[in-house]
Parts: sequence; structure tokens; C-alpha cells
Amino acid sequence: MYQKILLAVDLSSHAELLCQKAAEMAELHQASLSVISVVEPIVSDSAFDTMPPLPVDFDDLRLQSLRERLQQLGAKYGIRAEQRFLEIGVPKREICRKASDLVSDLIIVGSHGRHGVELLLGSTANAVLHHAQCDVLAVRIHK
Amino acid sequence: MYQKILLAVDLSSHAELLCQKAAEMAELHQASLSVISVVEPIVSDSAFDTMPPLPVDFDDLRLQSLRERLQQLGAKYGIRAEQRFLEIGVPKREICRKASDLVSDLIIVGSHGRHGVELLLGSTANAVLHHAQCDVLAVRIHK
Repeated sequence: MYQKILLAVDLSSHAELLCQKAAEMAELHQASLSVISVVEPIVSDSAFDTMPPLPVDFDDLRLQSLRERLQQLGAKYGIRAEQRFLEIGVPKREICRKASDLVSDLIIVGSHGRHGVELLLGSTANAVLHHAQCDVLAVRIHK
Repeated sequence: MYQKILLAVDLSSHAELLCQKAAEMAELHQASLSVISVVEPIVSDSAFDTMPPLPVDFDDLRLQSLRERLQQLGAKYGIRAEQRFLEIGVPKREICRKASDLVSDLIIVGSHGRHGVELLLGSTANAVLHHAQCDVLAVRIHK
């Protein structure tokens, strides 16, 4: 039914649950599985920035730690190294772009089922649902 | 992976595609499949209603025609009679309530990937995603 699955994970939370579900899904459908995690850049507003420049680049450190986490998860759940992607940008845009590049037929995302303001502002699951050109499986994450 | 799937269809459009995908999914997961369709009542605003009462009840006719369509689809895709539901109400609420009653672990809905105003007002797929207590598979319907 599905041949190319793209799993989108937030490496900071619930990634294990999502990886496990996605791996099961891929096995059941005999589909190839790719994983993407998108990091939003830390934007410093220089007009209010009274801190002197720091000797280390926190963005670099953060990226490196996330890259390691992604490699760990990929290895654990049998996602090949060339199918693991760490991107910097706006999650919904990068996820949908990657799905389009890979010609994915299913995107799996985690969903917290947000309400109110978060719903209007758009959670990632919601935004992906509205922008994806393929099917989207939202895996419910219970707090 | 999934044991109880609830398919939500709008009987007026694309129901065949959704039934087919849901039936495949249920077979693959060896899950039981139920189907729900929710009809929003026609509300007539009596303050502006200058029409005399009509000799036929259009709501009844509409319901009967939808019920027949649901039975046809159910029979065609192997969904048992007692697992076919036609409800009147607000779609997101009735779908999520039925999923909860049936202890469904996956809801399948169609998604048009709406934008702008429709996104803010909330499509059914979007609303279900945010209210469901289980996973939601949004099947992309291309216009």
C-alpha cells in the first residue's frame, strides 16, 4: 500500500515511540523508511542583544548533538545512514519538501492534539497535513 | 499494529477511494473496520424563512439516500452491517465520539489539504486530528 515512508521526528521528545511505530509500519508495508528532523534556527535579535559574543557556537553544538541522536535512532530502528536527514529551517516546509524530493507516499508525524492558540498558530502535524501532497499519519502522543 | 480502524467518509465525494484504502489497511493490519458518515443538519433560519412548509421532508430524503449509499459501500468493501454508522451532528465531534465508543486505535479521514480561511475554520481532517485520542491517517484527496 505504501512504498516510501518519511518519518518526521522532533529529536527532543517522543522520538523513540515514533521510530518504533514507523519501523513497524514500514515492515508491514514492505516500504523504505527515511527519517527527517528539522531544527529551527535560534534567531537572536541584535537590537536587544546586550550579551557579548560567546566563545562557542551553541547552534553548532546543538546540531552536533542532534545529529548524533539521529544516527543512534537510525541505527537502532534500521534506517540506513543515507536515509537520515537533519535540516535547518521551518519544519512544515522542510518536511514537505523532503517528502516531495523523495517521492514519499506517506509522512508520519507525531501529534499532541493541541488546542486553542496552538491550533490556530499551527502545530507541525497540522501544518504538514495541510501542505503535504501525500497521505499523513499523525501518531498520537499522550502526555 | 492497528486493531480497530474507524473510517470517516463524506458520502458525497471520494468515498470509494477512501473505502478502498481503508479496506486495504484493515486487511494488512488484520484489523476490524467500521465506517461512519456524519450528516450536518440543514438549519433553516425561521426569521428569514418566507417559504411555506414543503410537503416532503428533504432531510429525511437525504438521510435515506445517504443510508443506501453507505450500505452499498459497506457491502462492496466488506464492512459488516453493524459496523456502518450514519450520524447527524458536527462531524469532528461525532467521529471522535464514535472512535472513543468503539475504542478505535486509528481513524482514517480524507484530506483536501485546505489552505487559508478553510484552514482557520478547520477542515474535518484537521479538527479530527486535534480532537482524536488515537492515531489519525489523513488520506490525501487530489482534486
